[in-house]
Amino acid sequence: MSKIVWKPGTLLSPVPVVLVSSGAVDSPNAVTVAWTGIVNTNPSMLYISLRPERHSHKIISESGEFVVNLVTRDLVRKTDSCGVYTGAKVNKFKKFNLTPEKASQVSSPMIKESPVNIECKVEKIIPLGTHDMFLARIVAVNVEESLIGEGGKLELKKAKLIAYSHGDYLELGKKVGSFGYSVKKKKQNRVK
Amino acid sequence: MSKIVWKPGTLLSPVPVVLVSSGAVDSPNAVTVAWTGIVNTNPSMLYISLRPERHSHKIISESGEFVVNLVTRDLVRKTDSCGVYTGAKVNKFKKFNLTPEKASQVSSPMIKESPVNIECKVEKIIPLGTHDMFLARIVAVNVEESLIGEGGKLELKKAKLIAYSHGDYLELGKKVGSFGYSVKKKKQNRVK
Repeated sequence: MSKIVWKPGTLLSPVPVVLVSSGAVDSPNAVTVAWTGIVNTNPSMLYISLRPERHSHKIISESGEFVVNLVTRDLVRKTDSCGVYTGAKVNKFKKFNLTPEKASQVSSPMIKESPVNIECKVEKIIPLGTHDMFLARIVAVNVEESLIGEGGKLELKKAKLIAYSHGDYLELGKKVGSFGYSVKKKKQNRVK
Repeated sequence: MSKIVWKPGTLLSPVPVVLVSSGAVDSPNAVTVAWTGIVNTNPSMLYISLRPERHSHKIISESGEFVVNLVTRDLVRKTDSCGVYTGAKVNKFKKFNLTPEKASQVSSPMIKESPVNIECKVEKIIPLGTHDMFLARIVAVNVEESLIGEGGKLELKKAKLIAYSHGDYLELGKKVGSFGYSVKKKKQNRVK
């Protein structure tokens, strides 16, 4: 099987797709972001990359705060719409029936309908071209009670989260392994 | 449904999981990375975050080059192993039967068994704590011919890529929408 060399492109896949909320509980805004990821484990940090022309860019640049809301099967259509409309002209929370919820560490609202809300404070904004990268410290995580199982274990599978791949929103499928499973198997084999 | 507030953690999900290859075709190394994402559309840029103690950190810091190899169902077990072993002691390509393949723009090898290889040149290294973030320019993308359909359209679904979620490797499932679908639907309704 041979390969074709293409010009540079954003072909990493799958990537997350999240709703980023900002502003305040009484003047909330939301935008859809796929250019996001964890950049550091301790302290826990993530980034979001936003185009400077986005309404959220202005709000977050000024407040230095935002919330990353994970997207579920039930939120896909609203998430898609939040990526198309602009908060400069539309109150997306009202238009798409999203409920602003008070966060614990930031004044940005969380989206009640999302089961996991990650509160963030911006540490640095790095302009890169079409997008500015907001490097942020995670300051709190909010998890819906129904996702917490026995012994306080997070059962994230129940949330029915969505991935984004080359323009498509995809459900998550079958589990095919978990971190370290390839080594554990070997150890069991050795014992036998 | 109420929410529990947790301490900061790396709870973004799902995230990508990739094999990052570095070194040279005759002395290749590979490491598993989930802290990766697209940070800029034009010029196309991505990041990987690596712990300074990783063998790949040293190699990539010195060469300024690496390749991001997307992970398929068939590569999950090897990917898990590449995250556990260290290239300082083990030639992972040999141990796990991975084939180094010459890239077009960088001297780092690509992994032949991966259907999409993203060639990268480091622009900046940002220390953040446990991890250093390598901001990199994408300089070429290599795609397996079998994934290219009619009219040169990329059919990434055929690759059977894997997502990483809270310690689990998951297959990608059903398509539930594609970018802009929520708006297109409305337009069609309007026409009726």
